[in-house]
Amino acid sequence: MRIKTGIEGFDTLVEGGLLQGRQYLLSGSPGSGKTTFGVQFLATGALEGEAGAYIALSESIDTIRQDMLRYNLHVDELENKKKLFFIDMGPSINYGEYDEISNLITPDYNQQSGESPANTPPTPFSAYKTVETHVKQFGIKRLVVDSLSAIRFTSQNPASEERSIGRFIRNLKNLGCTTILLSELTKPDAYTIEQFASHGVIFLHNFMDKHDNMVRAIQIIKMRGTKHDCEMRAVEFTDKGLKVGKSLKK
Amino acid sequence: MRIKTGIEGFDTLVEGGLLQGRQYLLSGSPGSGKTTFGVQFLATGALEGEAGAYIALSESIDTIRQDMLRYNLHVDELENKKKLFFIDMGPSINYGEYDEISNLITPDYNQQSGESPANTPPTPFSAYKTVETHVKQFGIKRLVVDSLSAIRFTSQNPASEERSIGRFIRNLKNLGCTTILLSELTKPDAYTIEQFASHGVIFLHNFMDKHDNMVRAIQIIKMRGTKHDCEMRAVEFTDKGLKVGKSLKK
Amino acid sequence: MRIKTGIEGFDTLVEGGLLQGRQYLLSGSPGSGKTTFGVQFLATGALEGEAGAYIALSESIDTIRQDMLRYNLHVDELENKKKLFFIDMGPSINYGEYDEISNLITPDYNQQSGESPANTPPTPFSAYKTVETHVKQFGIKRLVVDSLSAIRFTSQNPASEERSIGRFIRNLKNLGCTTILLSELTKPDAYTIEQFASHGVIFLHNFMDKHDNMVRAIQIIKMRGTKHDCEMRAVEFTDKGLKVGKSLKK
Amino acid sequence: MRIKTGIEGFDTLVEGGLLQGRQYLLSGSPGSGKTTFGVQFLATGALEGEAGAYIALSESIDTIRQDMLRYNLHVDELENKKKLFFIDMGPSINYGEYDEISNLITPDYNQQSGESPANTPPTPFSAYKTVETHVKQFGIKRLVVDSLSAIRFTSQNPASEERSIGRFIRNLKNLGCTTILLSELTKPDAYTIEQFASHGVIFLHNFMDKHDNMVRAIQIIKMRGTKHDCEMRAVEFTDKGLKVGKSLKK
Amino acid sequence: MRIKTGIEGFDTLVEGGLLQGRQYLLSGSPGSGKTTFGVQFLATGALEGEAGAYIALSESIDTIRQDMLRYNLHVDELENKKKLFFIDMGPSINYGEYDEISNLITPDYNQQSGESPANTPPTPFSAYKTVETHVKQFGIKRLVVDSLSAIRFTSQNPASEERSIGRFIRNLKNLGCTTILLSELTKPDAYTIEQFASHGVIFLHNFMDKHDNMVRAIQIIKMRGTKHDCEMRAVEFTDKGLKVGKSLKK
Amino acid sequence: MRIKTGIEGFDTLVEGGLLQGRQYLLSGSPGSGKTTFGVQFLATGALEGEAGAYIALSESIDTIRQDMLRYNLHVDELENKKKLFFIDMGPSINYGEYDEISNLITPDYNQQSGESPANTPPTPFSAYKTVETHVKQFGIKRLVVDSLSAIRFTSQNPASEERSIGRFIRNLKNLGCTTILLSELTKPDAYTIEQFASHGVIFLHNFMDKHDNMVRAIQIIKMRGTKHDCEMRAVEFTDKGLKVGKSLKK
Repeated sequence: MRIKTGIEGFDTLVEGGLLQGRQYLLSGSPGSGKTTFGVQFLATGALEGEAGAYIALSESIDTIRQDMLRYNLHVDELENKKKLFFIDMGPSINYGEYDEISNLITPDYNQQSGESPANTPPTPFSAYKTVETHVKQFGIKRLVVDSLSAIRFTSQNPASEERSIGRFIRNLKNLGCTTILLSELTKPDAYTIEQFASHGVIFLHNFMDKHDNMVRAIQIIKMRGTKHDCEMRAVEFTDKGLKVGKSLKK
Repeated sequence: MRIKTGIEGFDTLVEGGLLQGRQYLLSGSPGSGKTTFGVQFLATGALEGEAGAYIALSESIDTIRQDMLRYNLHVDELENKKKLFFIDMGPSINYGEYDEISNLITPDYNQQSGESPANTPPTPFSAYKTVETHVKQFGIKRLVVDSLSAIRFTSQNPASEERSIGRFIRNLKNLGCTTILLSELTKPDAYTIEQFASHGVIFLHNFMDKHDNMVRAIQIIKMRGTKHDCEMRAVEFTDKGLKVGKSLKK
Repeated sequence: MRIKTGIEGFDTLVEGGLLQGRQYLLSGSPGSGKTTFGVQFLATGALEGEAGAYIALSESIDTIRQDMLRYNLHVDELENKKKLFFIDMGPSINYGEYDEISNLITPDYNQQSGESPANTPPTPFSAYKTVETHVKQFGIKRLVVDSLSAIRFTSQNPASEERSIGRFIRNLKNLGCTTILLSELTKPDAYTIEQFASHGVIFLHNFMDKHDNMVRAIQIIKMRGTKHDCEMRAVEFTDKGLKVGKSLKK
Repeated sequence: MRIKTGIEGFDTLVEGGLLQGRQYLLSGSPGSGKTTFGVQFLATGALEGEAGAYIALSESIDTIRQDMLRYNLHVDELENKKKLFFIDMGPSINYGEYDEISNLITPDYNQQSGESPANTPPTPFSAYKTVETHVKQFGIKRLVVDSLSAIRFTSQNPASEERSIGRFIRNLKNLGCTTILLSELTKPDAYTIEQFASHGVIFLHNFMDKHDNMVRAIQIIKMRGTKHDCEMRAVEFTDKGLKVGKSLKK
Repeated sequence: MRIKTGIEGFDTLVEGGLLQGRQYLLSGSPGSGKTTFGVQFLATGALEGEAGAYIALSESIDTIRQDMLRYNLHVDELENKKKLFFIDMGPSINYGEYDEISNLITPDYNQQSGESPANTPPTPFSAYKTVETHVKQFGIKRLVVDSLSAIRFTSQNPASEERSIGRFIRNLKNLGCTTILLSELTKPDAYTIEQFASHGVIFLHNFMDKHDNMVRAIQIIKMRGTKHDCEMRAVEFTDKGLKVGKSLKK
Repeated sequence: MRIKTGIEGFDTLVEGGLLQGRQYLLSGSPGSGKTTFGVQFLATGALEGEAGAYIALSESIDTIRQDMLRYNLHVDELENKKKLFFIDMGPSINYGEYDEISNLITPDYNQQSGESPANTPPTPFSAYKTVETHVKQFGIKRLVVDSLSAIRFTSQNPASEERSIGRFIRNLKNLGCTTILLSELTKPDAYTIEQFASHGVIFLHNFMDKHDNMVRAIQIIKMRGTKHDCEMRAVEFTDKGLKVGKSLKK
């Protein structure tokens, strides 16, 4: 079953949409439009009655909501109708007593002690649990997780890290939602464990070409079970969010 | 003795097929078609009566099976006839009590404690043992291991890691199966220990050329005891899976 | 609400100015003009009655003030009117008794012991507290932090570091100021956690082109909630500070 | 005294052959023909009555022997005449009780414990001792060690590692054999300690040129006491093994 | 107030000279002329009555003095007049009893124990103290420190290292001298903490161009409070030392 | 005072020769001719009555002597006249009882224990002491140390390592010999501490040009107190050793 993203020009590139219940990776550089893509995906479902949730692990939801109001995506209305949720799992905002204490500890003692335990990134398990609670309570069908890189998968062993990410994705699959995992693209030329573990990989590019023009582009790298377009395609921002355009191939 | 892979256009590049009883490495970037190649190899054997097993160490077998049903490879029928097996050795799906406990442990205490021991990647020995059990029980002749990188070969010493991989491959050899070890190609320009230890190395490429076209290609890097084709050749997806085409050389 | 930077040619690139109350990253190589940009931004606000503070974490404020007096920015006058503040949070200047003692300790004992604890970089919490005190006391509306890289965000875990930077930025947001975080651009081709955590990213370049000319340029990489110019544009130093010129695209 | 390798087109490049009693490094990428070069070298000597031994530290000797039977090198006959020996020093094949135990140990405890001690790579001393035993027992004159990288030279100090490799080579020299040390070329553009420590260095290349053709080539990098050819020369596989052809220079 | 370096063709590039009392970084590859630049700067001041000191932290002052006598800089005369000082803070020359003892200690015990404590590099504090003593005793106005990289700023934390360098520079500033800090340019394409911490950065290049000519060049990267030339300019050695020539831009 | 190297075409590039009593670095890739350059330098002095010593820290002196007899350098005769010495400080050749014991120790216990203490590389002090003994006993005036990289300068701190190398060079200076320190050029594009610490730096290149020709070349990178040629010049091997030819510049 194909799930429409509602992003103009995208769904036709992937046989009509994403596969229901799968986990996709959307990876992009700063300012490339990951948040916009994710909210468009949720709003499209919400307008058709499918509840969606945006799990914000680092950015404040006020900022995200404020920026999304610029688009004609009915974000306000959909939130009021309980069809669109912004869930804040970001760091606790206010510095408090614990921080005061740990500030007195010299850096020689413990490099990590400058931060309160309440502020450590979520483990895959705790991130999953929060997501699960909301999914069950509100009947969520579409999920956006912003971002996968904000979850503490760290391990001393690449095979363990791969397994840990794989397990997180398999648990998400159990929830039955179609999920977009946002990810920060730090080294565009390296393949990562996240990409191998996800059912599909989409890149959002924001780079300077040989003529010193900034180019915005989208590219589908991997899409299990789908005959997908492979080209790098122009992306522009319209009043409805992202719009995928023609191929950049020469 | 030569074993046909059944992949159109491939067997003629390697004197008619792979050598019976050897271990081959199939290395590729995300979305390059490693799973499809592996399942085609198994289905070809299964149709001729040779039982085959796909050992899934990270991806869920439901996803793999679902995606493979798109191809005209008789996967369903072959599974029913006990000629094709999908064996799930992936991470345990459900988060449980142990995860709840380890979630409470601060990251200062132990970075690896965020995951239950039942979720650690298999050692070469435990991976081998599971494979051996299935091979003996079902008379498996063709094996696909997805993926070699999901096995815990980690060592503090490159010479030890090489030895550990070499030993795993020599044990597999004892089972008498012709094996394809899938591997995640993370740095396409580096030679790895896996490549030196395997009897053959095949690359599946999925890259952008100078004209910004995505190119799918296959290339045989090494094939012990075989006069093999060396060129980078186009690959396309048909309704029967991968099909190897003409050389990309100019 | 849009906040004018007052930098000639800049505000029109970002829909008239920066968003009130957000945190922007200004990243540049040595000598690229980060300090000048920051002081222009503060002076522009101060002239219109908005108090601004320049938090100097490494450079001496005497040096900064002396260099800024070269520009026609009324720095002296604005400081006297309590509309512009230079706040020194740099390392304590004088070497003292503690240094004498730690000098006797052999390097085998402790590599970090060559510096007095009073000289360790501020934690996010202590940096925030100093900023908060000044903001509340003087009614600061615009902030420049020179530099983000001088704050001790260090962690053994990238996800923790991201969280720690994110938390610092969210706390700054609570103060209600529009903030420019200066940052040292050490590897111009890598995306950093700082860039993902900030609401906008501006690069100041100072590089040699193919014809061995040094080129000064500005480029807006990211600007949440804003349709922004994406081109690399020439920058020159006038008697009022930086001035943004025409696109360098060919 | 010059030792003929018997590889067509090679000996004339090095004043007629290798120097008797010296240690040469043959370094190549996967599938480049290192094993074939080594066995040709041994077979050439064996046919003239000089006993030779192939020390296999990782690959199984069955695989090597099987592959070499493809060539018209009289491998079978020479083995029967006790002029050619394949000596297996590879990892012990069968997984056993020890592996079962170490499998139960959690990865937190010890990363190296997943392998039995009997499976650790040989030290320079133990590798030397095995070689010495065979050399003395069978009157070996030509040696191939496959591969140098499978010996545990590891040290925390580059100068110690260099010394350890140097010592191994000087001990081999005491045995009086002419030796080819096979080595895995992982980073073709870096000079390694092995190359400085050996009396000669030969590269076997297997790379893709600008026109996407795979090119097989040989190149003599260093040859103490010898005026040697320096060019990159084409290599092809004939029924007698490798054959060195004309220069690839344009 | 502008301080003349006396280097022909240089001062006009920086509004007539360096700013009095500031700390400049002169960074160059081996043999690029850093010492010559430094001694010219000191001799120029000394001839006008301003005492100067060359702090040699690694090279012997005999070698420096001998090489500088080749130039027509009146080094001898200025030293006699107590206007120019070469101060040796290099490693103690003679190996002694301590070295004999530590030679017996095995490298397993302690990697650093091969050197006597008297031979460890100066801490920022001890380097500063020696400089301060000479500055006060001889009324030094110009300083050259050869080299900044010979001081033990090492820290486990980049922010601490930056702070430590910044503090050293701020202490030097308290002495009132105009200072040139020589620095070894090991990676010409990376920005370093030293460059961000100094008030100005000058590069001395010594590289091979596309036509395989060695090119000597100077380039001003950063110069706080100064409108400076940005081009890469030819440098030649005359009988008075370095001379800056025309731009290399094409 | 200038010391002739006797290498045809070289001395005229450096004002007639090397400076008496200084320490020069000769850095080259494998097979580039470092040993030949060193022995020519010694033989030239020896023929004029200046005793010279070649300190071999890794290669066996038999190999060096045998290779040098190919050249018309009167090596035999000069050794007999006690004007040329080859001094072996290489690793002890024979594996013995200690190696047998340490072979039994598992690699988990101690990675460095695979080698006997008698086989650890010399410390700067012990290397110096051996050199000093020979210099005093035989009245040595010219020294070649093969190689600097075989001495254990290792330190956890770059500033300490620089100091340790600097101290070794200053001690050598006390002996009054003109010294050539051979060094293995592993990364041709990086500047090393050795290069900053030596009084001169000469590179011997052995590389493939754009037309796939191997090029042998020499280049003087640094030469304190000397107006030196800067170009990359062809090098060829004649019956008298190296000969420097014309510039390779185009």
